[in-house]
Formats: sequence, structure tokens, C-alpha cells
Amino acid sequence: MSETPERLDADGLAALFAGSPFMSTLKLEVLGIDYDKSELRVRMPLHAGLERRVGTRQFHGGPIASLIDVTGDFAVGMMIGGGVPTINLRIDYLKPAVGDALTAIARVRRSGKSVAVVDIDVTDDKGSLVALGRGTYHPQRG
Amino acid sequence: MSETPERLDADGLAALFAGSPFMSTLKLEVLGIDYDKSELRVRMPLHAGLERRVGTRQFHGGPIASLIDVTGDFAVGMMIGGGVPTINLRIDYLKPAVGDALTAIARVRRSGKSVAVVDIDVTDDKGSLVALGRGTYHPQRG
Amino acid sequence: MSETPERLDADGLAALFAGSPFMSTLKLEVLGIDYDKSELRVRMPLHAGLERRVGTRQFHGGPIASLIDVTGDFAVGMMIGGGVPTINLRIDYLKPAVGDALTAIARVRRSGKSVAVVDIDVTDDKGSLVALGRGTYHPQRG
Amino acid sequence: MSETPERLDADGLAALFAGSPFMSTLKLEVLGIDYDKSELRVRMPLHAGLERRVGTRQFHGGPIASLIDVTGDFAVGMMIGGGVPTINLRIDYLKPAVGDALTAIARVRRSGKSVAVVDIDVTDDKGSLVALGRGTYHPQRG
Repeated sequence: MSETPERLDADGLAALFAGSPFMSTLKLEVLGIDYDKSELRVRMPLHAGLERRVGTRQFHGGPIASLIDVTGDFAVGMMIGGGVPTINLRIDYLKPAVGDALTAIARVRRSGKSVAVVDIDVTDDKGSLVALGRGTYHPQRG
Repeated sequence: MSETPERLDADGLAALFAGSPFMSTLKLEVLGIDYDKSELRVRMPLHAGLERRVGTRQFHGGPIASLIDVTGDFAVGMMIGGGVPTINLRIDYLKPAVGDALTAIARVRRSGKSVAVVDIDVTDDKGSLVALGRGTYHPQRG
Repeated sequence: MSETPERLDADGLAALFAGSPFMSTLKLEVLGIDYDKSELRVRMPLHAGLERRVGTRQFHGGPIASLIDVTGDFAVGMMIGGGVPTINLRIDYLKPAVGDALTAIARVRRSGKSVAVVDIDVTDDKGSLVALGRGTYHPQRG
Repeated sequence: MSETPERLDADGLAALFAGSPFMSTLKLEVLGIDYDKSELRVRMPLHAGLERRVGTRQFHGGPIASLIDVTGDFAVGMMIGGGVPTINLRIDYLKPAVGDALTAIARVRRSGKSVAVVDIDVTDDKGSLVALGRGTYHPQRG
């Protein structure tokens, strides 16, 4: 019997984020879902384990790449009930990401049968753009 | 007085990896340094906090992107004594990365005054290629 | 005597496009310049030499990549009087690009001292998105 | 009746290159095919229409991107009898490409059911590396 894909809401996404060992270390928070625009907004608060250097309040590039990948992934996956395989990803680091939290907004630019392309912008808590992502995903559950 | 850049050896790299809050969570091990070829090899063992889903022994894509970024970064930075700013990064995920550990080998393809380009291959513990990285870095300490 | 950079207007850009042997084969037309938003719009009409296969009216991917690179490049370069070196470029082909003309709109997302990052969207003559570009450029004349 | 895919030899590739309106303007020459290694080598001689500026003998970036895309594409497509759709492409320009000809060597790094990943290195006629490509292709005829 085939399973009907079900859209994920904020609680469903939060449960998936919390249930993944790696994602849970990022303490991601779902800020907003717009199914019509295929947009997802996710917040990542700073905690000591995400710092580049002790006490700098600067996020390491690894968590930024992870935030971008996860937000882009679930902008596609929220429509079909779960995470999807990432094909590839480009990350541009625009400036040091310093502060209390980062927010990623992912927008699906194209969703085809076998490939979805997503843009992800990351801003700091002052609204300044600190990183860009562009990812290609398989629009099927991984 | 200008400081003369000093090459980092395996102990120096290990100290930097351990001293960074985020990098220390990856428990990276320096496997090999080849200054003449501008190559660096780094191993990332699996531990529970890096899994995509509980008990799968599959690495999440976030730590893989982080391993790629760090290994590419220090393939440039090991020549000049410290980490360098990443300009941008492409990650291709080739297949699920499952097993005890991943190994990244970074090779500097071009090092100019303002930009260095690095290729990073990631293999699993059977030697199978699981991900590719290509990164652009500023060849100056960040 | 140092030369003051001068902004290029549509005529200046057209002259540069026409004066470059390769660019002149693309028969590019400047549709719009917005200095405040750092946006540039360029049109590339179909002609026989740009087709993928004879008589299909489908643009080959090569001219699309070229349109993206040139439009991104001069979105940076129009501020300083000429073309700039491309560091790297990502192109995503979303669907076959068929029709009378393509339009690229380039938006500078970040312009720093040594790196500028530009997004370029390409639409067909029905306004449908056919390709995406993201490029990194040196913000100095090449 | 399903058609059996047939490998393309150098003559078959040359015929396809010559038959495409855009590709024919690049005057590409097949230098070598290695089916076992999934490698393809293609040469692009300089002619006036490919120059960045008149008389500089420097290739414009557009033809370089095109050479990279085509060589990567047919490294996949030569196994199955024709060109394949490009999903996306990264180009890194390492230094000005000046001289009589460029040579691209494409190596398929991974070929799956729905995605093939290819690395393409471009050298000038002195063997110096001038550009890198990394492309993702659909391994089916487009």
C-alpha cells in the first residue's frame, strides 16, 4: 500500500530536528512555513559548541553550512513528509557571522520530478546577510 | 614588527582543531601532511552526535560539509600558521556515508595572492568515495 | 595619475559588449541599469549560432552560461568602468531554454574589498525561469 | 522496441560537435577517449571569435565555460550515444587563458542512476592549469 505524502507542520519539523542526533546539536527552531511560496525559515541560536573560537561569539562555518543544508532540505521535504537527499550545495560566506542567532530562509526556486533547486539566505540577528546557499535536492524522501 | 608565517605540523593542527569549540566536537585527527604537494589528510570518526538518524551509523551531511571545509581550509592555512577565511564552497554528496570513519584529502589546486582553490575528496572506511568538495579560500589568516 | 573609476551607462556597456569579439557574437542588449540596487538586465536574442540543435530554437547551455557570466560581471563592473575578473561561477539549468530571447537580471548580493557575490536569474520570453547563476568576482578591473 | 545505447567514438563525437550550431562555433577537436576510466579529452583552438578583447589572444570566459560543459557532458554521454542534460556546473577561473588552444580533460567521478558528477580540468598549450569545472549531469540522453 503506497503511503500518501503528508505535509509537515512546525511541530512535525521540530520533532524531526530533535530526533536527529546531529541536528539536535544545532538546536534549530522553526520560525515560519509558507507552503504556497515553498518557503521555510529556521533559527539557530548561538551556543558554546558552535563557536569558531572560544568566546568570540562567531559561528563556525560548519554549523552555517549545516543550517543552510537543513533549511534547504526541509523546504523541499516539508511538502512530502521528511528529509530528502542533497545532491549538491554551494555556500558563500559573506562576512563573519557574530551574534546571538542566525536565521536561514529557504525558497524553492524550481521543483521538478528529479531535481529541486533551493536558495537559502542567512542573516544575523541584526538582519545583515552573512551567508548564501544554493542547493540541489532529490524531491523524494531519503 | 611583522610576524613570519610558520608552517603548522600535525601537532599544531591538532591543537587548533581541539581549541575550536565547534571543531572539537568533530574529533578530527590529522592523518598526513604533504607540504610539497600542498595536501592534507584528516580523519573524522563516527560518534553518536554526528549521526543523521539514531543508530544508522550514517553521517549527517552537516559534519561532512564541515570536514570538507576544515580540511580544505587548513590545506591552505597550514602553510601560513592558521585558519583562513572561506570565500565559498561546493559540496557534492555522492552516496550515503556509513561506517566507522570518513577521511578527507585536500589538495590545493591553485594558490594565488588573493584566492586559493582546493579540491577535497571524502572516502569512507572502505575507501569508497562518498563526497566531493571544492572550495575557494583567502590565503591569509582569518 | 590615477584614473577615477567611472560608472558605465547603457551606451558604454553596449560599446564594451560590441567591442569584445566573443561577446559581440552573443548580440547582447542592455535592458536596464539600476545603480542604487546594483542591478543589471541584459537580453540575448536567439540566432542560429546559439542553438543547441538545428531548428529547435533551444539555446545551447554555453551561451546561457556566457550570458550569466557577462551580466554578473558587469553588474559589478558597471560601477567601476569595465569588466572584472570572475573568480567562480555556479550555473543551474532549470529547464530547456526555448524561444526568441533570454533575459538575465543580475543583482549584487555583497560587494566587499576583494570579493563581490552576484545572483543572476535567467528567464525566457514568457517570463519563465530557465537558469540560475551565482558568481564571485574581483571588484576591480581585469 | 527499446534502443540499445551505443558508445560514441571520436568520429561520432566530432559529428555531434559539428552538427550543433553553437558547438560548431567552438571548433572542438576530440583528443582522446578512455571508456574504462570514463575520461574524455577535448581541444579548443583559439580563433578570433573566442577572444575576450581584440588581439589579446586571451579566451573569453564564456567559451571556457562552454568547453567545460561540453566536455563534461559528453564524458557521460559518450557511454550512451549522445548529449545529456546538465543539472548544474561550477567553473573556477584560475588565471587568464592565453595562447593557441585550451585542452579540457573530463573525468566522471561518480555515475549513479539519476546523477553523474564530473570533474573537468582545463590547461593552456603550455600545460598550465587555467580553469576547473565540476558538473552534475542526468545520465540519460537529453
